[in-house]
Amino acid sequence: MTDIETVDLELVADVTVECVARTDPEAASPDPELSERAVGFVVDKPPAFGGTDRGPMPSEYFAAAIASCNMMTARRIAAKRKVGYEQIKCRALVHLEGSDIDKVVLAFEVVSDAAVDDWETVFRLADRTCTVSRATKCAIERTVRVRS
Amino acid sequence: MTDIETVDLELVADVTVECVARTDPEAASPDPELSERAVGFVVDKPPAFGGTDRGPMPSEYFAAAIASCNMMTARRIAAKRKVGYEQIKCRALVHLEGSDIDKVVLAFEVVSDAAVDDWETVFRLADRTCTVSRATKCAIERTVRVRS
Repeated sequence: MTDIETVDLELVADVTVECVARTDPEAASPDPELSERAVGFVVDKPPAFGGTDRGPMPSEYFAAAIASCNMMTARRIAAKRKVGYEQIKCRALVHLEGSDIDKVVLAFEVVSDAAVDDWETVFRLADRTCTVSRATKCAIERTVRVRS
Repeated sequence: MTDIETVDLELVADVTVECVARTDPEAASPDPELSERAVGFVVDKPPAFGGTDRGPMPSEYFAAAIASCNMMTARRIAAKRKVGYEQIKCRALVHLEGSDIDKVVLAFEVVSDAAVDDWETVFRLADRTCTVSRATKCAIERTVRVRS
């Protein structure tokens, strides 16, 4: 990490993320079992944005967080509602307008015998409860394709 | 990616992020040079959250996006204001309360001869203009430590 920082101070960022979690919000202090964790990330920009392409951009990490949280939540909801599936895939499109994120479009592709309406409901409920969606201000849109 | 998906369908998510960018928001269509890009991410959860630890959690990707965007923006602002430095490091603490993100705390450590007040200003301006901060709803707090 330090090497990369030295190589190109202006463009590559290395950040460490730690998690402080209370599973029970009423608890007086964080759960130590969930808090002993630190993950490192290398962040860069593609050459078209003036970077050296040694890692994803911040906005791509942002979209990955939204997409994966929605997907994991959707799986839990599908299981609870007994909506069966073989696979769920998600492609997230980040729409940047100048230096602002205009919207993130989640394109879900599901292999399932269930109706597309069932899946629309699953993904709508997922977006409403997903941790990252709830912490996000920009628009999150979605498309759902189901094939058996 | 497909192998991981098959191994543990319920927990590991693989998502692809694409970028659709207009550097000029007035332009009729996205800039093709900035839009031919797709990045893959593997997302999991630590065992304490019922996962298999094969990748960061969605909330950790979210915090990495906030931290790195703030750091890259701060570097640009520091250069513009001629606030010199040797190194900027950022540790992000995600505070989870139950399944909600309560806040993200950015702990900046700067090696610089400039005053801490100058850096407070740099990071305040960075948070105001950073692409990801502007798309985020949850609280973002920060601490700044400067040593020469």
